[in-house]
Amino acid sequence: MKKEAGLILSVMIGMAAGSAYAQQALGSKAAVASPEINADKTVTFRLPAKNAKEVLILGDCVADNKWIAPMTMSQDSIWEYTTPRPLDSELYMYNFIVDGVKINDPSNVYMCRDIANVMNIFIVDGNGDNKAPGDRYKVQNVKHGSLHKVWYDSKSMDMQRRMTVYTPAGYEEGTKRYPVFYLLHGMGGDENAWTELGRAAQILDNMIASGEVEPMIVVMTNGNAGLEATPGESSLGFVQPFVNLPEAKASFAEHFPEVVAFIDKNYRTKADKKHRAIAGLSMGGGHSFDISKCNPDMFDYVGLFSAAVRIPQIVGEESDDVLKKQLTTQFSKKPALYYIAIGKDDFLYDMNKEYRKMLDDMGFKYVYRESEDGHIWRNWRMYLTEFLPMLFRNN
Amino acid sequence: MKKEAGLILSVMIGMAAGSAYAQQALGSKAAVASPEINADKTVTFRLPAKNAKEVLILGDCVADNKWIAPMTMSQDSIWEYTTPRPLDSELYMYNFIVDGVKINDPSNVYMCRDIANVMNIFIVDGNGDNKAPGDRYKVQNVKHGSLHKVWYDSKSMDMQRRMTVYTPAGYEEGTKRYPVFYLLHGMGGDENAWTELGRAAQILDNMIASGEVEPMIVVMTNGNAGLEATPGESSLGFVQPFVNLPEAKASFAEHFPEVVAFIDKNYRTKADKKHRAIAGLSMGGGHSFDISKCNPDMFDYVGLFSAAVRIPQIVGEESDDVLKKQLTTQFSKKPALYYIAIGKDDFLYDMNKEYRKMLDDMGFKYVYRESEDGHIWRNWRMYLTEFLPMLFRNN
Repeated sequence: MKKEAGLILSVMIGMAAGSAYAQQALGSKAAVASPEINADKTVTFRLPAKNAKEVLILGDCVADNKWIAPMTMSQDSIWEYTTPRPLDSELYMYNFIVDGVKINDPSNVYMCRDIANVMNIFIVDGNGDNKAPGDRYKVQNVKHGSLHKVWYDSKSMDMQRRMTVYTPAGYEEGTKRYPVFYLLHGMGGDENAWTELGRAAQILDNMIASGEVEPMIVVMTNGNAGLEATPGESSLGFVQPFVNLPEAKASFAEHFPEVVAFIDKNYRTKADKKHRAIAGLSMGGGHSFDISKCNPDMFDYVGLFSAAVRIPQIVGEESDDVLKKQLTTQFSKKPALYYIAIGKDDFLYDMNKEYRKMLDDMGFKYVYRESEDGHIWRNWRMYLTEFLPMLFRNN
Repeated sequence: MKKEAGLILSVMIGMAAGSAYAQQALGSKAAVASPEINADKTVTFRLPAKNAKEVLILGDCVADNKWIAPMTMSQDSIWEYTTPRPLDSELYMYNFIVDGVKINDPSNVYMCRDIANVMNIFIVDGNGDNKAPGDRYKVQNVKHGSLHKVWYDSKSMDMQRRMTVYTPAGYEEGTKRYPVFYLLHGMGGDENAWTELGRAAQILDNMIASGEVEPMIVVMTNGNAGLEATPGESSLGFVQPFVNLPEAKASFAEHFPEVVAFIDKNYRTKADKKHRAIAGLSMGGGHSFDISKCNPDMFDYVGLFSAAVRIPQIVGEESDDVLKKQLTTQFSKKPALYYIAIGKDDFLYDMNKEYRKMLDDMGFKYVYRESEDGHIWRNWRMYLTEFLPMLFRNN
């Protein structure tokens, strides 16, 4: 099957379709190019909608963080918006709003769900600068690791639960053992979040291939204690995401050692503290904070990305005294890295500042990274690319 | 984290959002229930769109296979359509068309891509009849197998290529060896097709749990010879799916023994003919026809679902004489099952009839299954549920 494939495909779809409308529905290719990344890195969005009165574009690609802008109709009934300035190399998200109805771009099949909202995505690359964010997030022609959607029996939660495991290129064919990085999502996320909006598999493939990051196994759990799996993959069925969450039999943090035991049993791990890292964003940062202090012999590397530290519903309700005792034990074991990152505009900024003050007062060392912006995926992808090269370097 | 999670989530999103609009965008829950499966198994679709002049629903759930129907606006500016009759237990697909623009249902986050078209999906179950199609396709509370997205080096194609591998529940923890079923997609599909629109993981989980199907490894390759992986997961980037397909260095069928070798090397397989099956839909049926006759010692079970047999661009261009010689060799080795299934309205019906006549004339036995309808996923899921119980029963 060579170049004729496209032709054959069209013919087969045409022949296969049951009605004139179905033919078009199944066989349609996008009528316009959208989004189109122009040579100067401005981006043009297009939507054919000749009867619409008003079309808006909504997303983080709209100029100057305004989030929303009107599109204008051209003579041939195609609504257009071009960003007034080139976009930085990055992954962006958007929707259109047509006469008040929020829709996905019908010309762009690439989408990600964030909580209950499905947005189109696209990547602006850095013209081959393989350290530009967009290039880190792209699939490049390098050796790829595998992604495993695996179910484990949780005794403490009395349910099967799903996790995503990344194994680095060469894992299948080799006999080597690897360090393990546990990478946790935020509230409203799930075991798919880091590989979808987080682009973790691409970041790992690209940075392992370039030698910046040690080959490692990365475990992405589902941190919603009452849930088996991401929406649509659990026995709850195709329900609205994150509505009426079932009650859990144990907290996520309490149950976490079961995850580590499952991974050490079923993957070729280096099963000791020196070869384990844990990090997470938002709620997952809270989990990383909590799990690492409650299991001081488990992780040598800890990362808190925009972390929800000390929110009782997420990480338990210990007093300052208990927390200080736990941290004293944890830091007495000299973690190789304790990393805290947050954006200047993050709504959790003050909570993190207060926690850093506690660490400072107690003389505990950590690496601190303060970025622009707030509680957004752009920051979390960036923190991940900065955190990974620090892992497992001295082992 | 217990029931407070939903509340915390809302609060955090509210606090996190950078602007009033972004707050709503990120935190929005569906304003209406759509689709709503009513007690009598009619289904109601809803779309709030107060400025729209005309809203249509397009899909296989529209009554009497009409594919398209108008929705009507209620007093509160919500467009509605209720199917005039109960829907059979099945997985359905649909879009809305708002003033000429085809959109996804913003209240339903569950979607599947079919070629270049993204459609919403939903499942009508059979009220707990675990053999009703919808129940086969649901995630049930049974032991789940794992899905692996794995890359292999293809020497003949000179590229890394991605496949999906299903391992049955218990695979990780055990030491048992399993038979292997190679399950191939159609043109316009890829290594994700059988687990998305095909619901293969759910069908396998449910039918293995009920004892109807032997535990097995199922390998779902990418049959587009020039492509590394599904759109968005290859180094081509976020391009329009199946436009300008790259030229391949070898045909998919020629390269196939590399796949079998990779699987036998890296999974706990029973690596002989008695424990191997191959089947596919449409182009994948053509591939199964071709690969099984060119490798007569490889597969004991062969399934052709709406198969594109004898289309030169798919399966080579052998003469009748060569084909008959190949089939004579294949059938002399007494395959345990040669299964042909097709719908009465399939555009490949006559081609399959002709091929069956050749088999009849030569006295070669096969199992034949003729269904209603044409070249559609509903049939392929059904053929899969009928084919699976026949595999590996006498071993």
